[in-house]
Amino acid sequence: MKISNLFTHTSKTAPADETSKNAQLLIRAGFVYKEMAGVYAYLPLGLRVVDKIKQIVREEMNAVDGQELIMTNLQDKATWSPTGRWDDKTVDIWFKTKLQDGTELGLAWSHEEPILKMMQRFIHSYKDLPTSVYQFQTKLRNELRAKSGIMRGREFVMKDMYSLHASQEDLDEYYSKVSDAYLKIYDRLGIGEDTFVTYASGGAFTNKFSHEFQTICSAGEDDIYIHRDKKLAFNEEVLEEGLRAAGVSREELELVKCAEVGNIFNFGDEKSREMGVMFTNSDNTQAPVFLGSYGVGVTRVMGVIAEKFADDKGLVWPEAVAPFSYYLVGIGEQGSKQCSELHDKYPELVLWDDRDARAGEKFADAELMGIPYRVVISDKTLADNAVEVTNRQTGETNILTITEFITKLSAASC
Amino acid sequence: MKISNLFTHTSKTAPADETSKNAQLLIRAGFVYKEMAGVYAYLPLGLRVVDKIKQIVREEMNAVDGQELIMTNLQDKATWSPTGRWDDKTVDIWFKTKLQDGTELGLAWSHEEPILKMMQRFIHSYKDLPTSVYQFQTKLRNELRAKSGIMRGREFVMKDMYSLHASQEDLDEYYSKVSDAYLKIYDRLGIGEDTFVTYASGGAFTNKFSHEFQTICSAGEDDIYIHRDKKLAFNEEVLEEGLRAAGVSREELELVKCAEVGNIFNFGDEKSREMGVMFTNSDNTQAPVFLGSYGVGVTRVMGVIAEKFADDKGLVWPEAVAPFSYYLVGIGEQGSKQCSELHDKYPELVLWDDRDARAGEKFADAELMGIPYRVVISDKTLADNAVEVTNRQTGETNILTITEFITKLSAASC
Repeated sequence: MKISNLFTHTSKTAPADETSKNAQLLIRAGFVYKEMAGVYAYLPLGLRVVDKIKQIVREEMNAVDGQELIMTNLQDKATWSPTGRWDDKTVDIWFKTKLQDGTELGLAWSHEEPILKMMQRFIHSYKDLPTSVYQFQTKLRNELRAKSGIMRGREFVMKDMYSLHASQEDLDEYYSKVSDAYLKIYDRLGIGEDTFVTYASGGAFTNKFSHEFQTICSAGEDDIYIHRDKKLAFNEEVLEEGLRAAGVSREELELVKCAEVGNIFNFGDEKSREMGVMFTNSDNTQAPVFLGSYGVGVTRVMGVIAEKFADDKGLVWPEAVAPFSYYLVGIGEQGSKQCSELHDKYPELVLWDDRDARAGEKFADAELMGIPYRVVISDKTLADNAVEVTNRQTGETNILTITEFITKLSAASC
Repeated sequence: MKISNLFTHTSKTAPADETSKNAQLLIRAGFVYKEMAGVYAYLPLGLRVVDKIKQIVREEMNAVDGQELIMTNLQDKATWSPTGRWDDKTVDIWFKTKLQDGTELGLAWSHEEPILKMMQRFIHSYKDLPTSVYQFQTKLRNELRAKSGIMRGREFVMKDMYSLHASQEDLDEYYSKVSDAYLKIYDRLGIGEDTFVTYASGGAFTNKFSHEFQTICSAGEDDIYIHRDKKLAFNEEVLEEGLRAAGVSREELELVKCAEVGNIFNFGDEKSREMGVMFTNSDNTQAPVFLGSYGVGVTRVMGVIAEKFADDKGLVWPEAVAPFSYYLVGIGEQGSKQCSELHDKYPELVLWDDRDARAGEKFADAELMGIPYRVVISDKTLADNAVEVTNRQTGETNILTITEFITKLSAASC
């Protein structure tokens, strides 16, 4: 893409009421726009990051046989009443609205009940199980406070998966497979090393057990006890129980700020019993379906990545989620011509700053946007048949021959 | 994909309260699930159709330099008040809700106002114009009646594009370019021949001029006068005016039922004047931005295609939007083995019915689902090194050699 074709501009300032670092930087770099507290639009560069995260999550969900679908935002009372979760006292983050005839509707903040209700149409026998479905959906949650930028939105993109099983054992096995898939996702997103699985209580979700995926991040909302070597993590609520189970002492643990980047719930057959979702088992008896539920906040993870890696010059994206891998700056006539050719050949990989502006201004924008590699091509570098590649994260500059650089582009575009 | 991996099943019946043909068939074939009137979930096969339509629309919007982004569902009063469109008397399809502190919010049914407000951050000078942005968004509209299946939903996917210009002339030129892009979209979707551009009044949208794209469809909600040879179309409201402008007489026209598949609006500078969205023109004066707005109801178009082409055996998808192009039925051991190999090699192109079921049952499902080609591979056809390909639309059967069939698959997968 050419910068001159992008309607967004970088800016030295963010809205005065924006206190979170992730949103301040994302707004300044032109990735998001703040509609109101906790409600952000994703502009072209930001949408590219969202789409890259989604694609990584999609691949890992497909790898555990998840089938993609899309459920609805609008929800009715009849679906949610049997489990008690229609009640605003039980679930205090509903947005509710009304049809013209006065019928009350809710806006989906999760989908366990609608999925189970829908699955009644398709699951009759144990032969129809197990099955697993997921979606990328814009969720609305009426959060009391929304001060963490895109890390806790009132409107946000979530991947939620639901798995249905004929037995607790089968659910447990799949639950642990999805837990592994989640760790793979965080690895691919570049935050694997600092992400831990913790035991947690399920809040509004469940009385059964659940796990959180927590990433070390100073802007996080949770205090987590971690054991780096053993990759263990506990929140306060389950600390004593956890220490006993893992056989470690409190002194071996470190207390760190973390941000939740995923959450999985093992509901057992509780919800199906409440809703009457039954199947005919192999012994010809009727039994309730076992349910697991697995969430990754896609835009939330984007916020955590933004927050975690940013430095005083701006954003720093891991290459896997960066909107573009290379930020091209041409200096002089030949340099610009070479940039133009590379841009035309690899428009999805390079962001070419074709503006009539000072190199210093372009460098500053490249840094604010957090593009992994800045590539300078000048008449001077071309005299040596070379380009100058600077790593955004380390600041290191390397000289590559044009052929080497094109080989990199060509490999990445496959 | 293998049928055995799909959680959906076909069904002989649709919900009793579902009166529209498109939703009846889509539900029976397992493409959609009815959450409530006008609110449908898209199951794996249905989501594939939605995604294919989206990709065609995306390519044509990119071709007219549209930049993809995603705006928010949640909307505030301050954004919509200046144009008078916050008022439920002016716009009678708002869903409204409240934050916990009682602040009233709306759920977006269109995005002219939010786009203009957001663009104030980026458009300062005539050099920032023209620019054009689009999104695929789940829109919520509080329709009084919702009896047309996915052709008129209370929740539906829409592509909406907005273009901003420095002059009426520049807007007019782009407006006509988008009109052409829309016709290209309908051509690619397989409904080009029966789709007409009509003059229409803008309803809640605008007092200026607008155009509708109308597709001949017996389930459509509009009565349109068309001139097939001259590709002209008028609705009742503008008939007299239209006849005069086109120089044709009423007698030359045919009155047909049509379904609206797109709608474009030329707002001129009206909205920007109301909202105070100004830019510095080349002569250094302040001027209001000119706005165009362009919508394609993605799920609506899917409903029109379903409705228009269906026959007494079920759905009939044009190949460009079909979830899969080929429905494989293997008969006998060698036939099944060949199907399995083709499936593994082209999982995105073929739906392999690997169930232990009668061939007749498989044929009926292939027809209900509307997959463009049914391919039978049996020990008998293999004896001649051949496969039997039946066209869903025409019912014609052709014998292809395996090599010919693989060449087709290989070409389509590029």
